[in-house]
Amino acid sequence: MHKPNIRRILYKYLEPGGWPGLGLSPVNIFISTLIVASVMVAILETEPTLRDNYLPFFIHIETLFFVVFAIEYGLRVYAVGEQPMYRGVIGRLRYMVSFVALIDLVVLASFLLTLGVFSTYWMRLVKVLRLLRIARLGRFSKAMSAFSHALKERSYELVFSCVIAVSLLLGSSAILYFVEGDNQEAFASVPRALWWSVATLTTVGYGDVTPITSVGKIFAGVTALAGVGLIAMPTGILAAAFSDAFQEQRKRDAAQLKMTKQNIAKKKS
Amino acid sequence: MHKPNIRRILYKYLEPGGWPGLGLSPVNIFISTLIVASVMVAILETEPTLRDNYLPFFIHIETLFFVVFAIEYGLRVYAVGEQPMYRGVIGRLRYMVSFVALIDLVVLASFLLTLGVFSTYWMRLVKVLRLLRIARLGRFSKAMSAFSHALKERSYELVFSCVIAVSLLLGSSAILYFVEGDNQEAFASVPRALWWSVATLTTVGYGDVTPITSVGKIFAGVTALAGVGLIAMPTGILAAAFSDAFQEQRKRDAAQLKMTKQNIAKKKS
Amino acid sequence: MHKPNIRRILYKYLEPGGWPGLGLSPVNIFISTLIVASVMVAILETEPTLRDNYLPFFIHIETLFFVVFAIEYGLRVYAVGEQPMYRGVIGRLRYMVSFVALIDLVVLASFLLTLGVFSTYWMRLVKVLRLLRIARLGRFSKAMSAFSHALKERSYELVFSCVIAVSLLLGSSAILYFVEGDNQEAFASVPRALWWSVATLTTVGYGDVTPITSVGKIFAGVTALAGVGLIAMPTGILAAAFSDAFQEQRKRDAAQLKMTKQNIAKKKS
Amino acid sequence: MHKPNIRRILYKYLEPGGWPGLGLSPVNIFISTLIVASVMVAILETEPTLRDNYLPFFIHIETLFFVVFAIEYGLRVYAVGEQPMYRGVIGRLRYMVSFVALIDLVVLASFLLTLGVFSTYWMRLVKVLRLLRIARLGRFSKAMSAFSHALKERSYELVFSCVIAVSLLLGSSAILYFVEGDNQEAFASVPRALWWSVATLTTVGYGDVTPITSVGKIFAGVTALAGVGLIAMPTGILAAAFSDAFQEQRKRDAAQLKMTKQNIAKKKS
Repeated sequence: MHKPNIRRILYKYLEPGGWPGLGLSPVNIFISTLIVASVMVAILETEPTLRDNYLPFFIHIETLFFVVFAIEYGLRVYAVGEQPMYRGVIGRLRYMVSFVALIDLVVLASFLLTLGVFSTYWMRLVKVLRLLRIARLGRFSKAMSAFSHALKERSYELVFSCVIAVSLLLGSSAILYFVEGDNQEAFASVPRALWWSVATLTTVGYGDVTPITSVGKIFAGVTALAGVGLIAMPTGILAAAFSDAFQEQRKRDAAQLKMTKQNIAKKKS
Repeated sequence: MHKPNIRRILYKYLEPGGWPGLGLSPVNIFISTLIVASVMVAILETEPTLRDNYLPFFIHIETLFFVVFAIEYGLRVYAVGEQPMYRGVIGRLRYMVSFVALIDLVVLASFLLTLGVFSTYWMRLVKVLRLLRIARLGRFSKAMSAFSHALKERSYELVFSCVIAVSLLLGSSAILYFVEGDNQEAFASVPRALWWSVATLTTVGYGDVTPITSVGKIFAGVTALAGVGLIAMPTGILAAAFSDAFQEQRKRDAAQLKMTKQNIAKKKS
Repeated sequence: MHKPNIRRILYKYLEPGGWPGLGLSPVNIFISTLIVASVMVAILETEPTLRDNYLPFFIHIETLFFVVFAIEYGLRVYAVGEQPMYRGVIGRLRYMVSFVALIDLVVLASFLLTLGVFSTYWMRLVKVLRLLRIARLGRFSKAMSAFSHALKERSYELVFSCVIAVSLLLGSSAILYFVEGDNQEAFASVPRALWWSVATLTTVGYGDVTPITSVGKIFAGVTALAGVGLIAMPTGILAAAFSDAFQEQRKRDAAQLKMTKQNIAKKKS
Repeated sequence: MHKPNIRRILYKYLEPGGWPGLGLSPVNIFISTLIVASVMVAILETEPTLRDNYLPFFIHIETLFFVVFAIEYGLRVYAVGEQPMYRGVIGRLRYMVSFVALIDLVVLASFLLTLGVFSTYWMRLVKVLRLLRIARLGRFSKAMSAFSHALKERSYELVFSCVIAVSLLLGSSAILYFVEGDNQEAFASVPRALWWSVATLTTVGYGDVTPITSVGKIFAGVTALAGVGLIAMPTGILAAAFSDAFQEQRKRDAAQLKMTKQNIAKKKS
């Protein structure tokens, strides 16, 4: 009767949904901190000047991160057996091919791949894969699920404003292609003109491509003004979705807190 | 008594307003998908590197699109006779000169024009005309009419903020023309200064034209700060219009769904 | 008893406040259209390529505008005697030095000045002065007064967000002056760094001045992110002020319309 | 019994919390004006062309500001003894190491440091320190505390949108590093790519760094469109926090005004 107890305790401390109180278990707070630290190290490691000077430090700390995350991965796979759907060897395999567990595996594998990769191109891919660790933080977040739920409820509005955005992008690209296509390489086709169009409608405005003819400038000015409207629409939708998401989240948090307190009171009495 | 039945079925499947349920008929879902595909092909076709390498593919697929859209156009003109106002030959002609049907005709004609056009300038116009197909999608959209209705209700605010925008554009152009006109060709007249003014007030900021004198920079800074206000106004108006439009749309959808269900229940009993 | 009647009719048709119905009198609609046309002519006239080619046209049309606006100015000064405070010669002089009447006089004078001015610098000032005509349109606008009233009610918030904006501008300029002052002329003093700072915090981002050191780029990145907050604050305030202004305006318009109808009904009965 | 009375009067006029009415005491209005003036002088002094031409003026006015602020600092330290927690010599020392009093001391010290500093690098730091005077204005502001309180209530939302912002920044940098790393020095590491990423997601868009490959441009376009969403989220949160803060502030001001009036009425009766 000993083994299941260890599994239950591991499950309680490792699985975000298994923790009875609000927030994260101490183990997951530690893991989250480690993820943030390892992402920062992975980012700094891409900088050649840093990597060349502190190579031993990067190798040691990456090995340490690998060992800790590998142990955590093994324990998590073992503990997930607490849930009936992931029980037994087949259940564990089913868990390992779930989206969140696959990301963990890819990130762990990216460490081993570094040893055998010598081409700079693939090396870069491996380094970028390491940054996927930050995606694991999403698993711990209850706010994320509340927010994505609120976005889903407004998917109709979002799709509609995307359609308007795409129409504006295509329309302005087509006009500039027609007007400036003869004068500049950057407007010599609609897909090329799209690069200018995106930069203008989002009001980023790099300035690497700008119309040079008078007619082109007039249409570009109209596009820039339309961009103000393009920004206005998702701002309204997202702001409302955001405010809804957090009001719901607060209500749920308050309800859970109340329930937890009642449970404690029951146990005492 | 056979012919009217075919016409009624065609009308039901081809005319967005003729479909009894929510959303689009299967035929119109297919047509919409085809429109999106044909627009993407038309965009890629403008790119010289792609066109030169895959010319046969583009000619074949454009011919296919032409045939399908020509058949659909013919059937739609035939089926529209279901509506009393478009009955008979004169009614059909009246339909063909309506705005939505004219766009269809222009797009179809653009295919035939390609065969006879050899100047690159007119070729470009013809290619751009093909992109008009995407405007046809608007016909299928109930959201579009709800949104344009909401915009009309706020036309007073929109006109007012346009007037303020135009005043800011002219005012800042005039000041920069006065201050920088002697130093730079790009500020040598108010219309030329407008190009800088639009880029600054919309916060696009290409950077191809910037003031160089100290006084010019001071006024340009004030203009940039005023641009923040310029963006704030339509954002508030459009966000409110948008949120109103979709609340109305949802209510109408719910009402239509209820009515459809009642009709089905009636038929059964 | 004849003269006062002409004056009363002139007052009714020329003075926006004297017109009993909603909107503008027919005369003022004509004057407004003429103002817009004359501003457009004045803008196009600043373009050297147009001015050189169509000089006689510009001289004729400017003379025509001068004559019409001079007559309108004279009649307005005569008609304003309807108001007790502007009665008599002294009253008329008091009206002529009021802000709105002075703008009219400056604009009229700018025409006569063109004849005697030959230096291009002063010529440009005279041309810009002509654009002031558009400011006269503000007099006809009831929406403008509703909007400025709504802004006044929120002056506390606006002042507060201006103070935060100024602090951010000065703070980021001071830091970049400290970090990049040795490396670039454009950051060699706080006032010079302000030019970069305004372009960054308003998200205009011309790109004519950018930090080149790593530390400078880090602080510039933080400034750009703070700029998002800077834009968020006035957007909220102005959007709310705007929406309040137009709700009030609509209520007032509805009330005035009701009153006008009652007056007509009374006269009939 | 004379000394405590002077201290009480000084406390009343110097300490913002000690003034019974709304707003600031006349002495603090004078001090605030002087702070603004001294900050403007300190900014202009950093400009080499001004400093070289008007050196005596800057030395005289900086000395004057130093004397006035030193006297004000001394009197404030003396007067703060009115509060029980800062009574006696030890209490005064406790006050002097509080955050607001330390800023005052640093600013005062920056004047004396100018005399002994000859390296241009440290000179620049000293000049920037003088700008800290503007931070003192915050002490006088009741709106600031209302605003920071409203921000604290929404700290959850703000942290969440910061997490999303950081994820977008890192994700887009990583992708562009992978895609463009071979082609441009500016994308040769994730930290370097972050500079481009910040400029794009905040829609600043300097244009000093832009992708040159087609794949890079596609991902950059997606990043620019995501930037619109990034701006939308804090805009909604900050606008709501802002509007809440000022509604509360107005209620509190109204309540304080009422209380003040009642106190006056009581004293009279």
